[in-house]
Amino acid sequence: MSLETKEERVKLTPTLAEIGEKRVIEAITSVAPSSINGDDAAVLHTPVPNRRTVATTDLLVEGRHFRLDWSTPEEVGHKAIVQNFADIEAMGARPAAALLGLAAPADTPISIVQGIARGIAEASSHYNTELVGGDVTQAGELVVSITAIGALGGDRQALTLDRARPGQQVVAHGKIGWSAAGLALLERFGRALPEEHSELWPLIDAHCAPWITPGRGQVARATGVTAMTDNSDGLIPDLSTIAARSGVSIDLFADAIKPDPLLVQAGALLGRDPLEWVHAGGEDHTLLATTAKPAPSGFRVIGEVVRGESVTVDGRPSPYTKGWASF
Amino acid sequence: MSLETKEERVKLTPTLAEIGEKRVIEAITSVAPSSINGDDAAVLHTPVPNRRTVATTDLLVEGRHFRLDWSTPEEVGHKAIVQNFADIEAMGARPAAALLGLAAPADTPISIVQGIARGIAEASSHYNTELVGGDVTQAGELVVSITAIGALGGDRQALTLDRARPGQQVVAHGKIGWSAAGLALLERFGRALPEEHSELWPLIDAHCAPWITPGRGQVARATGVTAMTDNSDGLIPDLSTIAARSGVSIDLFADAIKPDPLLVQAGALLGRDPLEWVHAGGEDHTLLATTAKPAPSGFRVIGEVVRGESVTVDGRPSPYTKGWASF
Repeated sequence: MSLETKEERVKLTPTLAEIGEKRVIEAITSVAPSSINGDDAAVLHTPVPNRRTVATTDLLVEGRHFRLDWSTPEEVGHKAIVQNFADIEAMGARPAAALLGLAAPADTPISIVQGIARGIAEASSHYNTELVGGDVTQAGELVVSITAIGALGGDRQALTLDRARPGQQVVAHGKIGWSAAGLALLERFGRALPEEHSELWPLIDAHCAPWITPGRGQVARATGVTAMTDNSDGLIPDLSTIAARSGVSIDLFADAIKPDPLLVQAGALLGRDPLEWVHAGGEDHTLLATTAKPAPSGFRVIGEVVRGESVTVDGRPSPYTKGWASF
Repeated sequence: MSLETKEERVKLTPTLAEIGEKRVIEAITSVAPSSINGDDAAVLHTPVPNRRTVATTDLLVEGRHFRLDWSTPEEVGHKAIVQNFADIEAMGARPAAALLGLAAPADTPISIVQGIARGIAEASSHYNTELVGGDVTQAGELVVSITAIGALGGDRQALTLDRARPGQQVVAHGKIGWSAAGLALLERFGRALPEEHSELWPLIDAHCAPWITPGRGQVARATGVTAMTDNSDGLIPDLSTIAARSGVSIDLFADAIKPDPLLVQAGALLGRDPLEWVHAGGEDHTLLATTAKPAPSGFRVIGEVVRGESVTVDGRPSPYTKGWASF
């Protein structure tokens, strides 16, 4: 778990200002190559019939969405891809390509930029996609802007937020609360997690490099899911969005979302209620969906859609409803 | 030409921190509405047969790509769309949609964000497109990240950088050098251009709000152009890219690119050689193309493709070859 400090990196590698824009771009495309990158725009061919194009974008700002003393540049690139592709998967679509807008101070070591590009390339490869284009520019702080493009095949509807219906089950794929617990551990210990608590590293990893099995969103669409989102702001906030858009209530089963042993242990260590991480933690990018059919493979049942206009747990309001907000 | 100062705006409207993320997004989508915005990702339907998807992204950083004492927020949004859609048009494709990633300090007045969104919406409407998605986040400086999505119909090839061939004409659509001249005027006078030089305002406007007739890229593709780009880094630098990728030389006709009267006048006023703006100015987003056919409507002949590996003017090297570079 050894990370170079920013100062060490500065000594080890040239800065963006020293090597210039052309070589900055080469440093990125050498680790994240694509045969369709390098023209005014990237041209994507996808062979699926009745294809629609799906697009989403997310910004990650240093010091706000990531810290380079907590995450490696590779993890930053990985996370940027996973959170954008989670939005594509949450429509039931297939991620097809990513573009990178990178703003960075002139004294940024090129190793950091290349590390981010390497993380982007590695995460993208698990989805059989590439970094197909981008822009680099100088700025006062490091900003990673990813746009994800996806393809939606066939005639079936996209999995929008407004199609939850009473009587459906609520299903989830992925961990819930781990990212927030990992962030809380980093806030307390940085990367110096005490040796006797080393079993908690998976929580930190879930924050720095979240992971959702590629393709689960497409499986969900193929097997009858109607509404879907990913847990980016928090379980209750994100399901509240589905409830409000669909005009329904969602009741979660307390037993199905009770904090797992790692969260309980982290909560005890930090003096925090792990339920808060589960209910309002966010950034797990867990897929959350509703369906009248059996849970798709890889998904588990965590609640049900009922009449009303709220989100409850075993019929009661959660004490933790406030998730991530940018301002 | 009166602009509020940043301080005046701060007094007039609430800041992003005061109104919160949800209302920031509402302020954007109220002036740049789209029926497909607001889900995890936007789903685009385009009816063109054999459609390919084209994508590109560009970042604009305050203080580097724009200054709010030189440009209105509306002009910033306008320029962000035009420069991204120019990249789509430069492939011969049709702009179809845009996404906005906006990073801004918490004390940014919402009027600035809404002005940028309004400029995006107004420019987009000329292309019959919408702002279909985005992300807003807090940051230390104002960064506008636009991703443009385009559609390429039919079987004909995209207009890439590598398809210029000896014997072709070099053609251009749009002003060349105006943006750089406008920037030079702003650097000298700010918005306080002396009354007796008011006829030079079109140069400043060309810098703050460049404009290319929508659809010229598609016309070019339909009428036999093979290679195309837009003048973003500078006429000589951008044509040098086409020359290098295509393995050819390009010889420009000095008469065809000689500075027009406004550039000559601005050069005299500022004590600058207007040829530099024409040869290496950049940011005009003029479409530059090569074709074995007659110039497409709206384009004029500015040179020819010959054997070799350089860019010359009447057979001689330009003294001005260095364009815009990010680092």
